[in-house]
Amino acid sequence: MAKDKPTSQADKRRKDREEIQMRIEKFAHELIKEIDRNDNPHIDIPVRGSSNVAFDEKEKKIVLGSKVAKRFLFNVSHARRFMQTMLVASYVKKDLLDNNLTATLRDLYYAKKRTIAGTKEETIDEQKESDLAIVDFEVALDTFRERLHLRAEPKGRMAGTMTIRDFVKEKASVIKLDQLGSGGLAIPSIVEQIEFVDYDLEYVLVAEKNAIFDRLNEDEYWKRNKCLLMTTAGQAARGTRRLLQRLSTELKLPIYCLTDADPYGWYIYSTMKYGSMALAHESERLGSREMKFLGMSISDIEHYNLRNVTIRAKDVDIKRAQEMRNYDWFKAKPWQKEIDKFLDKKIKAEIQALSSKNLQYISSTYLPEKIKNQDFLP
Amino acid sequence: MAKDKPTSQADKRRKDREEIQMRIEKFAHELIKEIDRNDNPHIDIPVRGSSNVAFDEKEKKIVLGSKVAKRFLFNVSHARRFMQTMLVASYVKKDLLDNNLTATLRDLYYAKKRTIAGTKEETIDEQKESDLAIVDFEVALDTFRERLHLRAEPKGRMAGTMTIRDFVKEKASVIKLDQLGSGGLAIPSIVEQIEFVDYDLEYVLVAEKNAIFDRLNEDEYWKRNKCLLMTTAGQAARGTRRLLQRLSTELKLPIYCLTDADPYGWYIYSTMKYGSMALAHESERLGSREMKFLGMSISDIEHYNLRNVTIRAKDVDIKRAQEMRNYDWFKAKPWQKEIDKFLDKKIKAEIQALSSKNLQYISSTYLPEKIKNQDFLP
Repeated sequence: MAKDKPTSQADKRRKDREEIQMRIEKFAHELIKEIDRNDNPHIDIPVRGSSNVAFDEKEKKIVLGSKVAKRFLFNVSHARRFMQTMLVASYVKKDLLDNNLTATLRDLYYAKKRTIAGTKEETIDEQKESDLAIVDFEVALDTFRERLHLRAEPKGRMAGTMTIRDFVKEKASVIKLDQLGSGGLAIPSIVEQIEFVDYDLEYVLVAEKNAIFDRLNEDEYWKRNKCLLMTTAGQAARGTRRLLQRLSTELKLPIYCLTDADPYGWYIYSTMKYGSMALAHESERLGSREMKFLGMSISDIEHYNLRNVTIRAKDVDIKRAQEMRNYDWFKAKPWQKEIDKFLDKKIKAEIQALSSKNLQYISSTYLPEKIKNQDFLP
Repeated sequence: MAKDKPTSQADKRRKDREEIQMRIEKFAHELIKEIDRNDNPHIDIPVRGSSNVAFDEKEKKIVLGSKVAKRFLFNVSHARRFMQTMLVASYVKKDLLDNNLTATLRDLYYAKKRTIAGTKEETIDEQKESDLAIVDFEVALDTFRERLHLRAEPKGRMAGTMTIRDFVKEKASVIKLDQLGSGGLAIPSIVEQIEFVDYDLEYVLVAEKNAIFDRLNEDEYWKRNKCLLMTTAGQAARGTRRLLQRLSTELKLPIYCLTDADPYGWYIYSTMKYGSMALAHESERLGSREMKFLGMSISDIEHYNLRNVTIRAKDVDIKRAQEMRNYDWFKAKPWQKEIDKFLDKKIKAEIQALSSKNLQYISSTYLPEKIKNQDFLP
């Protein structure tokens, strides 16, 4: 089952970097041309916000519509953000890409914050300003921040019968994901450079909780079931979402998601699968549209006789479920039934509720049964 | 510099397990004897709470005093918690230790929650009840929960020129911490079983933030400076605190701590070093009393000319600092000066403020300088 990938991700990443560097230069040259022509320099920025967000039924992802706004330098209400976008562009190109370094959004904020000479005006007052300028720059360049060498907070761990190659700059590490003991590999912020060297896997199982990862790792679930085991440790970080997408699209591995049976669990799932409204411009790079929801489902509560270890839904859960029922990406019949069942019974359950049977019930019975019966929600 | 540790942690852990199993049996036999004598069965439980917490100046740790409470079975206000402590004891012994399995506090809650036959009474209403019973059982046995095979939420990552052996049950993994790419090893919940096989290290550097870990990892700081690099990713998890203690006491490695220059950073530091009031009974197992505070200090703000990237302290920071100024473990003169300086200037700074100089300033200048000059707070 071992498969080799002939292309080197490290080379690919270098080419990516050069390509982005050129894109930024082109972006700058367009502005210089406008200046030379005595035009009002401008940037085209796709509109974000809910007025320009839609669900692409065919591609199964939340996407930005086609509305584009022009931002001008000589416009009192645009000038400040224009300047901030230029600061972002300069930092990304000169400080990061040209040196092959990565940084956080906060590093950028600190590096570019200063009092403008001869004024009391700060280039950036608060980090949320530079964060917005970063997103502007991402969408203007039609790329995503990891390719601009901007790191997000990492979270999540993984283990399984797989060998990967990861690079810190040009230095390679070969990492055997089946030799990492009880901790597993911490999933990094940027995963573009990771190469899938060798693997013997039938699917990826991604759990919402560290506790489930630890349970399944202790039970050697991943070994006995040939799966790559991951945990998001809550809402999935960007690195984890991107890695899941790469596993799905490049290796064609099925991805099964395991969360609590509640609206927050559905939300974690839907964000990994379809993207989110706040980051609609990133769905293409972060969503895993082939992902399946393994559980825990509201039906599981009856089927596995867990009624006495459920939790009464709170008002906020009910409200959330009612909202989600109307989302285009939850319109599939099985999901409408699932949400209706929840709204009817007004109970939720945690995955750990299975521990009321016995500690290893999840690995010996629940998961194998669900997977054998392909008992998933779409 | 490579050092071998002749004793196997795996054997040690098995012996630990047997020792704890025997301690639980002894605990149970004492109760049975009381029952046989028609006495009122009782458990001796050291009092927690602030009335019985003190700072041990000599041992430099926050400890429980000598007050012990007796909890009786035949006492209306004790009976419920007595019963819950027995449920904990039974679960730990029969479900966990006897099977060499680990579980979370939540697993225990679900496993032992049920309606008592013939009543409408639940054994455990809410998890906080079983959590309290677990702490009772820990202190009654004079041990800590990891030795009872109870896992806490893991957090934190590490990398460095060190090889460790970790065990999942009896299965060993040999993990080279210098071959883990950009992610590093996720520090597990329980670290008792970890063996330090081989290392070439001069100190441990533990940073409060993932962003700093990523920066220093990209700069190969740990390689060039022979350090083990760790991040707590916020307040340190129990596993991380225990691992730091083991690195300090078993390998005699100096531990340097790097947080933001603010009361929250000091709190993260003091918890790792001295323990906390809430977990005073655990300080002995979780505190690293030789740890030093490398920075960022309020003096660093002047020394490194960071005044323009500081943040105005909030009222809550000021209040916190005033409280901390009175804690016995902040009474050392350099700390009193540090806190006074903060209260005087009313500013705080993040480690990332150093990025305002340049991205690699922290690894090329700040850290080497601070360490060379041994410019630490105690």
